[in-house]
Amino acid sequence: MGIRAVVWNEFVHEQENEIVQKVYPDGIHRTIARAISAEGDIEATTATLQEAEHGLTQARLDETDVLLWWGHKAHGQVDDAIVDRVQQRVAEGMGLIVLHSGHFSKIFKRLMGTPCSLRWREAGERERLWVINRNHPIAKGIDTAIELPNSEMYGEPFLVPEPLETVFISWFEGGEVFRSGLTYQRGAGRIFYFEPGHETYPIYHDAAIQTVLRNAVRWAYNPAEPWRDVSEAPNRPYDQAREKLTPKGASLHKKGEAGYR
Amino acid sequence: MGIRAVVWNEFVHEQENEIVQKVYPDGIHRTIARAISAEGDIEATTATLQEAEHGLTQARLDETDVLLWWGHKAHGQVDDAIVDRVQQRVAEGMGLIVLHSGHFSKIFKRLMGTPCSLRWREAGERERLWVINRNHPIAKGIDTAIELPNSEMYGEPFLVPEPLETVFISWFEGGEVFRSGLTYQRGAGRIFYFEPGHETYPIYHDAAIQTVLRNAVRWAYNPAEPWRDVSEAPNRPYDQAREKLTPKGASLHKKGEAGYR
Amino acid sequence: MGIRAVVWNEFVHEQENEIVQKVYPDGIHRTIARAISAEGDIEATTATLQEAEHGLTQARLDETDVLLWWGHKAHGQVDDAIVDRVQQRVAEGMGLIVLHSGHFSKIFKRLMGTPCSLRWREAGERERLWVINRNHPIAKGIDTAIELPNSEMYGEPFLVPEPLETVFISWFEGGEVFRSGLTYQRGAGRIFYFEPGHETYPIYHDAAIQTVLRNAVRWAYNPAEPWRDVSEAPNRPYDQAREKLTPKGASLHKKGEAGYR
Amino acid sequence: MGIRAVVWNEFVHEQENEIVQKVYPDGIHRTIARAISAEGDIEATTATLQEAEHGLTQARLDETDVLLWWGHKAHGQVDDAIVDRVQQRVAEGMGLIVLHSGHFSKIFKRLMGTPCSLRWREAGERERLWVINRNHPIAKGIDTAIELPNSEMYGEPFLVPEPLETVFISWFEGGEVFRSGLTYQRGAGRIFYFEPGHETYPIYHDAAIQTVLRNAVRWAYNPAEPWRDVSEAPNRPYDQAREKLTPKGASLHKKGEAGYR
Repeated sequence: MGIRAVVWNEFVHEQENEIVQKVYPDGIHRTIARAISAEGDIEATTATLQEAEHGLTQARLDETDVLLWWGHKAHGQVDDAIVDRVQQRVAEGMGLIVLHSGHFSKIFKRLMGTPCSLRWREAGERERLWVINRNHPIAKGIDTAIELPNSEMYGEPFLVPEPLETVFISWFEGGEVFRSGLTYQRGAGRIFYFEPGHETYPIYHDAAIQTVLRNAVRWAYNPAEPWRDVSEAPNRPYDQAREKLTPKGASLHKKGEAGYR
Repeated sequence: MGIRAVVWNEFVHEQENEIVQKVYPDGIHRTIARAISAEGDIEATTATLQEAEHGLTQARLDETDVLLWWGHKAHGQVDDAIVDRVQQRVAEGMGLIVLHSGHFSKIFKRLMGTPCSLRWREAGERERLWVINRNHPIAKGIDTAIELPNSEMYGEPFLVPEPLETVFISWFEGGEVFRSGLTYQRGAGRIFYFEPGHETYPIYHDAAIQTVLRNAVRWAYNPAEPWRDVSEAPNRPYDQAREKLTPKGASLHKKGEAGYR
Repeated sequence: MGIRAVVWNEFVHEQENEIVQKVYPDGIHRTIARAISAEGDIEATTATLQEAEHGLTQARLDETDVLLWWGHKAHGQVDDAIVDRVQQRVAEGMGLIVLHSGHFSKIFKRLMGTPCSLRWREAGERERLWVINRNHPIAKGIDTAIELPNSEMYGEPFLVPEPLETVFISWFEGGEVFRSGLTYQRGAGRIFYFEPGHETYPIYHDAAIQTVLRNAVRWAYNPAEPWRDVSEAPNRPYDQAREKLTPKGASLHKKGEAGYR
Repeated sequence: MGIRAVVWNEFVHEQENEIVQKVYPDGIHRTIARAISAEGDIEATTATLQEAEHGLTQARLDETDVLLWWGHKAHGQVDDAIVDRVQQRVAEGMGLIVLHSGHFSKIFKRLMGTPCSLRWREAGERERLWVINRNHPIAKGIDTAIELPNSEMYGEPFLVPEPLETVFISWFEGGEVFRSGLTYQRGAGRIFYFEPGHETYPIYHDAAIQTVLRNAVRWAYNPAEPWRDVSEAPNRPYDQAREKLTPKGASLHKKGEAGYR
């Protein structure tokens, strides 16, 4: 069985905007799902905002190894309860790949703890993504840099924590730079933020971008059993301590009582 | 003018529990405020859950350099709007010191993005906090280790991101270890998590612990002007680009339009 | 073909000291090589200080995916030219696992840039290695903690840079703690430092320790082509720039001239 | 007394090359020393390669709070014993600021453990250093970005470890990017690498660059007592353990014996 990936898309602009429709006639999610399935080791399905529970029921997330997230206009419509669920699954070990305007998604802001703000410009300018460590699994098959003839500018400062690793940094024609590929570890889960992907340009049809997406899914996949109780704070009573222990001093909790949350 | 610190406390156990009352007769917040004010360079005031807006109005937070946070039983009663406000101020540059059971506070979980879970035991056992970098500003005046004769055990795994710096690691009599002093940078704000502080033991009366608290306030203080628009994502139109730019390709946004959030 | 691992050992104490001889009659290197080969996916060979070029010729290192390093008494006898060679191979992508007293090896100090000092005691005391992220590939198959009935104490402060990830932290019977499993990325190479392994105790015969060693070899293995010119600083002349460029200003170097080193 | 800074320069090109002589008639070191002394809180002196012990005797280093390092053509002429000495002082808490072509200095490569290689081009092109965290002490007084009309291009990949903090990232006219301001902690010492500074351009005469240099000296200054024995690995005999301990098992070392190095 392959890596079970779910490509989530808010799927709004493709239904409202003619330009976007021409670039992604059946939705960004389907283009990405086809791209990451192309080499046979990843089994990609899709989910959208409009589906019941945004297509992300607990049962489905429990069987998802890596989730990809594309959103832009409708971040505010994503149900907080679903965001809780996704965040918990990342802590348990599910991989998460956040794409482009997903920098302002609820789930990314939750996982980063920072504003995730940036500067932007939509002028179809040239972008060049430089590879920082060419032997990083996410950069496999990329030769020095990726050239995008038309891209939306995302510029620093990008308000995220220092990453685990800086995989790509972008140069923009209009004079800005951006850390366009960043990895994070949160609990047992791996996160990759990847900046390219504006919906009016055919960026997800680009072969190098598709290579990065496949690499990222493989990198984010954690084969370990999900860490289901990762958010629990269990009491370890004194008589089960690994070292012999005689209780001393005053106590707030009665023996066996649960902690506060 | 000194560093303006606010010590926040949920102030519940001191009013309900006789043991805690004896240790902190006028509340943990007042003990800590006195301790950090003792050398004259820090001006500490207090705030509690019971006050209007939990004592943390926008005006007050705007004049706070460093906030200290103690909570345990009443995390759930803290208003989400106040948590938003504190999180924004940290991004702008306010320092934050999270104490003991504050690991499960809304604000700490928000800023970390992880479950912040751990293992615990209330048996009055011995704890020893080893200093990792004795020349770190937070460890100033601490000689090798801090010994606490009675402490609540907090044990690994502690579900937080890898820190900027590991300042203390604790040894517990019952056999556990814990990363008991950790620093983080989130936006323009510095964060220090400090593990000791169970309310049934006189830990905040300990001279070494008080030294660490004063050091931490000084370390977390950022004298720069607050970064008020840190969460904004301003458009940088093509005709204001630093390099001459001719717009190309299709556009989603009209000129001057705000981005989506 | 499996992962090509080389276990390097200074192989001194096993030939001089009766106690060590009993624990490792044919050398620590052979015990470790057998352990990591046990599941068939790793092909381990050995090398020792006494061999020509310490068994680490350029040709052999070029065919090594992961190097394990055990040294203690004879760090000073390791040829600097061989250390250069190993360091270059790590930068190119070879994995390196540094064991126990290897903290003071030339190669580890080179790669860390810090003193790598620590506190120590040889009293056969109990050590317990707590797993920080149980879903980390290096912790696979380890349940919460590893118990070692007899170990040499290594205590903080351990003078190394903040790691990429803290995988294990140890508790010692005599009251100390130690970050006993740490990962680093240096160039294209991954490094794992693993603290247990004193030669008078049968630690490398322990099943859990052997599991960690196998996991670590798999984790450190980088399947990418070696980055042979990783240490070069090539000139990128203006007429080969990705953006059209007209040279301006004064010049130190003539066109085509190599840079200084 | 102010912060005691020493500006070290190999001082070769200024004596050999007419262009450089015009830009820095009395040497880069003197220009930098004047610049960082300008606000009165830093007392800067200079040292050069040609002096006895390169001007860096043990006595002088012992009284240096922050060392700035500029070298280019003569890295290989720097005595290894002096490099050892500087490295030890950084571990003890001395700040170090490595400038421009100092990326290939012995001391920087030692402290990083990586090749410190990069791509370069001398075409007098435009460079723009974007500030990543505008409230970082090193960026104080810098407004969004620094513009340099003529600069040498340094391009990624830059083979250094992930930094503590990314303070500046540069955009180059010819299409490259570079992490041009990076901080590191090594032992008790703070390190800042700052990329601008090619000797044929008047970069150290630029007001914004001088501001960054002053900020960096203040940031790197550690007021704590030097950690003189930071490289020692002292034995902690069982009868001085913080917890009562009865020695068990076999022993390699006799009581009181020093460890191996």
